Amino acid sequence: TDGKLVIADREGNWEFQPIGRVMWDAIDTDEDDSGAEDFHGTELRRARLGFEGSIYDWGYKFEADFATGGNSGSDSEVSIKDAFISYGNKFNDLAYDVKLGQSHIAYGLNTKISSKYMTFMDRPWFADSTVSPARESGAVFSLAEKDYRWLVSAGLTNGEIEGGSTDSNGSTFSARASFVPYMQDKNHLIQVGLGYLTKGGGDDFRFRQRLVSHKDATRHLDTSTFEIDGADAYTVDAMGVFGSFHAMAEYNDFTAERTAGSDVDITGYAVEAGYFLTGESLKWKKGFTSGISPNSSAGAWQIAARFETLEIDDSANSDEADKWTVGLNYYPTKNTRLMLNYDKVTDLKVDGSSVNYEPSALKFRAQAYW
Amino acid sequence: TDGKLVIADREGNWEFQPIGRVMWDAIDTDEDDSGAEDFHGTELRRARLGFEGSIYDWGYKFEADFATGGNSGSDSEVSIKDAFISYGNKFNDLAYDVKLGQSHIAYGLNTKISSKYMTFMDRPWFADSTVSPARESGAVFSLAEKDYRWLVSAGLTNGEIEGGSTDSNGSTFSARASFVPYMQDKNHLIQVGLGYLTKGGGDDFRFRQRLVSHKDATRHLDTSTFEIDGADAYTVDAMGVFGSFHAMAEYNDFTAERTAGSDVDITGYAVEAGYFLTGESLKWKKGFTSGISPNSSAGAWQIAARFETLEIDDSANSDEADKWTVGLNYYPTKNTRLMLNYDKVTDLKVDGSSVNYEPSALKFRAQAYW
Amino acid sequence: TDGKLVIADREGNWEFQPIGRVMWDAIDTDEDDSGAEDFHGTELRRARLGFEGSIYDWGYKFEADFATGGNSGSDSEVSIKDAFISYGNKFNDLAYDVKLGQSHIAYGLNTKISSKYMTFMDRPWFADSTVSPARESGAVFSLAEKDYRWLVSAGLTNGEIEGGSTDSNGSTFSARASFVPYMQDKNHLIQVGLGYLTKGGGDDFRFRQRLVSHKDATRHLDTSTFEIDGADAYTVDAMGVFGSFHAMAEYNDFTAERTAGSDVDITGYAVEAGYFLTGESLKWKKGFTSGISPNSSAGAWQIAARFETLEIDDSANSDEADKWTVGLNYYPTKNTRLMLNYDKVTDLKVDGSSVNYEPSALKFRAQAYW
Repeated sequence: TDGKLVIADREGNWEFQPIGRVMWDAIDTDEDDSGAEDFHGTELRRARLGFEGSIYDWGYKFEADFATGGNSGSDSEVSIKDAFISYGNKFNDLAYDVKLGQSHIAYGLNTKISSKYMTFMDRPWFADSTVSPARESGAVFSLAEKDYRWLVSAGLTNGEIEGGSTDSNGSTFSARASFVPYMQDKNHLIQVGLGYLTKGGGDDFRFRQRLVSHKDATRHLDTSTFEIDGADAYTVDAMGVFGSFHAMAEYNDFTAERTAGSDVDITGYAVEAGYFLTGESLKWKKGFTSGISPNSSAGAWQIAARFETLEIDDSANSDEADKWTVGLNYYPTKNTRLMLNYDKVTDLKVDGSSVNYEPSALKFRAQAYW
Repeated sequence: TDGKLVIADREGNWEFQPIGRVMWDAIDTDEDDSGAEDFHGTELRRARLGFEGSIYDWGYKFEADFATGGNSGSDSEVSIKDAFISYGNKFNDLAYDVKLGQSHIAYGLNTKISSKYMTFMDRPWFADSTVSPARESGAVFSLAEKDYRWLVSAGLTNGEIEGGSTDSNGSTFSARASFVPYMQDKNHLIQVGLGYLTKGGGDDFRFRQRLVSHKDATRHLDTSTFEIDGADAYTVDAMGVFGSFHAMAEYNDFTAERTAGSDVDITGYAVEAGYFLTGESLKWKKGFTSGISPNSSAGAWQIAARFETLEIDDSANSDEADKWTVGLNYYPTKNTRLMLNYDKVTDLKVDGSSVNYEPSALKFRAQAYW
Repeated sequence: TDGKLVIADREGNWEFQPIGRVMWDAIDTDEDDSGAEDFHGTELRRARLGFEGSIYDWGYKFEADFATGGNSGSDSEVSIKDAFISYGNKFNDLAYDVKLGQSHIAYGLNTKISSKYMTFMDRPWFADSTVSPARESGAVFSLAEKDYRWLVSAGLTNGEIEGGSTDSNGSTFSARASFVPYMQDKNHLIQVGLGYLTKGGGDDFRFRQRLVSHKDATRHLDTSTFEIDGADAYTVDAMGVFGSFHAMAEYNDFTAERTAGSDVDITGYAVEAGYFLTGESLKWKKGFTSGISPNSSAGAWQIAARFETLEIDDSANSDEADKWTVGLNYYPTKNTRLMLNYDKVTDLKVDGSSVNYEPSALKFRAQAYW
């Protein structure tokens, strides 16, 4: 009702909500001496439309992204994000729900925090990638104490929908538990989390990641493509909110069992801290973060910094990188945000040897959601 | 207002409605000894967003499907479903309307029943195919007695919109009439229908159909592609609702005049019956079926069975198949449904000779619409 | 509230609006003796869905077009139209706003008038093309007297979003000023406008245009593709509304500095006049035109005619054409319109020499918007 539209009946038996987000970026990358071409331009990073609603205990959500574009050259294509039917209810003091369709699997913290709310313009390298997958098609179950002091969830899924369907040979089992050992109030709390993921074999695997922006010409961090007999991963995370200050850390370890050859281990972590100059607090909601409301009509200002590292441990093919990101966020209203990020790689090894270039990028985003 | 959102003014002069549907399937096919690969996976079968509205006697509807995917490999593409401007009014006790744009042509029963309401997860083989086309671009006119005891409609159309437009060499003329000879009340009635379709020549024609699911690897029922000088088709259908029980039957006969060679005749029929264990009745509305409202908050349960057969009569190339489908439907609320279907081919001839495989599939669907 | 849906709070602090349009055309072209194939068929010319909203002084808009289709052959693709975040406010008697993202640049009259409101089914040849670009990605600033008696705007943009982003080597600077020297009331006024555009070099340039419809098989007006060192353009326009009569004229001159070779000059103008037989007036709004409301429930009728010419002045490659368009528009309600257009080329030179064919087209459109 303040910037978002929710239509509901008086008894709360049903509700219906158009949803969407627009994120427009201006990006200026400096590839340093890597030989790859710099990017100077603009990008429609996310442009999503959808609907969600519920009737009694049953709900649904569908959202498509029109910004994917990719290789088509002239016109954008569309990718499916959430598309599920859900059932949720309460049992004593416990809230549970089941989602059937494509939704976030039960794994990760940075991966599951919505792009609407994340502190920086791009997630850490490991998040929302093949080593910490975001959405897959299948069933996901959650159980939580009624005020989400603890939350456990598990999913059995069959990969991400591509070309309308999934037919992975191996299914993915994911599980996540989070716990709030300390909560003075909603603005002073600590949460710790754990995730585990295992997937079956028979499919191809590849991890690759751009270093400093979504438009990097080259992905220096890159395993080759290989068939796997299976893979396991775990993640450990913690977040704390102390008034206007917040900190968040996550460590992710993914091991792919290559069908022909030795295992490939991909490990990464990211540590971030942020501070609202105007007195607001990061909003913790149901185990993740949510949108803030500025205290004054002049809007809210936040500064933040993040350090991250990622290592691909493969006999011949090892890559490794460190990066600093600093950010300045301005929230004019509850559902709009302007972001300025500077990303700088401080150490880079490609294919086992250190290289003499350290790419960086200056990035600006204007975003709105509803 | 119960699960659907319609916004209207008090005098009923205009209304506006966001519309959509999500259908998510889990499919497990058994190709038996056909040599084709089984499919084990999930599919986003339909994912549609759109709007419809009216102002005084003029209306419009636009709905796009984001689930088509097809060959693109990585991201879904979008196909246009309804896209029309309409004018409707009453004259004495008669209701009439004209649609300009892409809409359902005036042909068929199974083809025209919405996927939101159909009894099984997939339509019969003949329905919604080149032998009983669904939507085409052009003009469609309807005239009905005010409570739809009889309904006649006719369309002149130019094929389905592909790549934004149509330019078929031959136009399609379609006509349908339905009549309710017996109606005790809305839950006890019999309707019979007749359809006729003729299309001009100069375009290519092909009919092919998957046997047991939307993800079958092979389409065993398949004419080749050939140019036609024209085609004619007719359909005869009947449906009856008797309290919690319903039955429906349709026979479709399509004859393609091959430019070079003899005519190809494609005939098929399907007979289905269903029963609500929880006392609801199939909802008859304006000559077709619509959504049911569960009697209790525990939802509605329905069992159903269908037998169908299809025959391609072509000199060298004849195919023939019989199939049984049994289904169990659970309607938690008015606009959600879970479906379980088992399809089993019981007789199959390919290219004129019987084969020793009888494909089957177990299919599950979760659907919501608004 | 009459055909459009706007949801807002009582204090006017925020609002939210689903938006869209459907335009369905039936087209019959006569290529005369050009050798190209005539088009007889239907087209979904525009099919757009989106949302726009505002909260306090901040706004956003996103709209995608599902009708582009293009080469894909079977299914439509999607193109991004408006996608921006905006800030707008008043300062004394001045209204200003800034848009970040993809929006209309500050150039042109015919190009900027919405397809929902334009008098004819197709814009003049120069409008909404590479010589008078419509939307680009960047920042656009506007400043106006509070009742838009004068309006100045300027944009710095980086090309149109293709495949999700832009990375033009040269940026575009655009500027437009309009002024109303005479206004008796909203239905009796004259406005004059001026536009200037300059873009940097390093990118490829091509102008080509269909003559009589959106489905012409050939684009007889066509520069080749060549790299430019930059380009400049200016436009002069005027419009007048005198009760039921309106007239509009625009002249556009675009000069491309070819990297290798002499400059290419593309000039065009269009003059149109229209008259409402039923007494309505063209609606002038904020420097452009908007939708009309029929005086009676029987709808509004308008007749209109346009003459236009375009010339490509290139040493070896000059093209030149003149065309008349006559149109009949019927507005059943405020947000629907039926259009009948006849386009006839009266003079045509291709590659420097007059040709003996004069293509024409008869076109019908049914449109609705919300």
